[in-house]
Amino acid sequence: MPDTTGASPRDRFVAATETLLREAGMSGAGIKEVVARSGAPIGSLYHYFPRGKTQLVAEALERHAAKLPRIIERSFDDTRDAATAVQALFNDAADGFERAGADKGCAIGAVALDLTNADTEVRAMCRQAFDAWVADLAARLPGADARARRSLAVTTVAAIEGAFVLARAHGNGQPFRDVGKWMSALLEGVEAAHRPRRASARPKSRARRSTKP
Amino acid sequence: MPDTTGASPRDRFVAATETLLREAGMSGAGIKEVVARSGAPIGSLYHYFPRGKTQLVAEALERHAAKLPRIIERSFDDTRDAATAVQALFNDAADGFERAGADKGCAIGAVALDLTNADTEVRAMCRQAFDAWVADLAARLPGADARARRSLAVTTVAAIEGAFVLARAHGNGQPFRDVGKWMSALLEGVEAAHRPRRASARPKSRARRSTKP
Repeated sequence: MPDTTGASPRDRFVAATETLLREAGMSGAGIKEVVARSGAPIGSLYHYFPRGKTQLVAEALERHAAKLPRIIERSFDDTRDAATAVQALFNDAADGFERAGADKGCAIGAVALDLTNADTEVRAMCRQAFDAWVADLAARLPGADARARRSLAVTTVAAIEGAFVLARAHGNGQPFRDVGKWMSALLEGVEAAHRPRRASARPKSRARRSTKP
Repeated sequence: MPDTTGASPRDRFVAATETLLREAGMSGAGIKEVVARSGAPIGSLYHYFPRGKTQLVAEALERHAAKLPRIIERSFDDTRDAATAVQALFNDAADGFERAGADKGCAIGAVALDLTNADTEVRAMCRQAFDAWVADLAARLPGADARARRSLAVTTVAAIEGAFVLARAHGNGQPFRDVGKWMSALLEGVEAAHRPRRASARPKSRARRSTKP
């Protein structure tokens, strides 16, 4: 149950929807379940969310989507290469998954697999969330060019989403640790092939930087 | 819609459930939807499936789980190394995803993200399916030892499941192609580090083989 102490009824509805989506996807996030989980008065739900479940789900996904960039930021601190950062990201995900009860996946992933053709607004939210995560990661990963870094970021996001799937089935965070180890090995190989500048022993001159940004 | 021409009502219920789970997870596979999609008479459903939705879902997952080993078998033919085989596996998945309408994920993955604590039987089915796929792949992948091959197989299955998630959100198979390229690069690196016998230029003697099987 999300910590909603002191939160407004509106926030409690969104937080409850997010948790229910993480637990059981679209099938778990009916209006009745959202109201029960939120502890907020049902009378106010349609006041805050006149478009009902679609609006609730869209806002819950937006709230959920904002979390990964913070986790990425924390893992990729300046002292780490990408291989070490991604290993830390997956180990943190494993610990977080287990601390949260080993029964909560990624809300975006769960909803993406539940999309019907009618869910155009929610589908767009999922796509935007993944695109934002991919862009964020691509800027931090090694690779020959922007296209290679982007597809490597797609692979990393897919690895996170897939680890959630296996972790949910197994009821523990071990899949994150397994996947993180190999994603880290992959990145080590890519870093070795395309040496990032910071690993270079050659000092950077201001003149070089200004002609080759 | 699954091709159910000539299939028995029982098979049509299971095939319809599988398709609905692939499209929208547990939320899409209500009894009403299964009956409508199957075209079979509702009166016979509880005759064939006395335990209702749980039994239908369990049988649909069993049917779905049997498909990946056939795809793995086809990709890993004897002429290919693991890196080439996995690339082929992901490219086939991309093409298959698009041919099927770009709106169907993996039934096991979709259900795994929808599991509630009450779904013990269905959870066990998901876990068994993933374990079987991991064991199948682990026997074909390179690696230093059984544990490394197993975690590499977990990573490959997670990559497939994650590619489905991103492909569903984007409505095309490109995530499979991106992920397959990098999974293949990872396997190339692992194969280079743990050279498989068939890649060796050294001719194998019968004597050597018999002393070192």
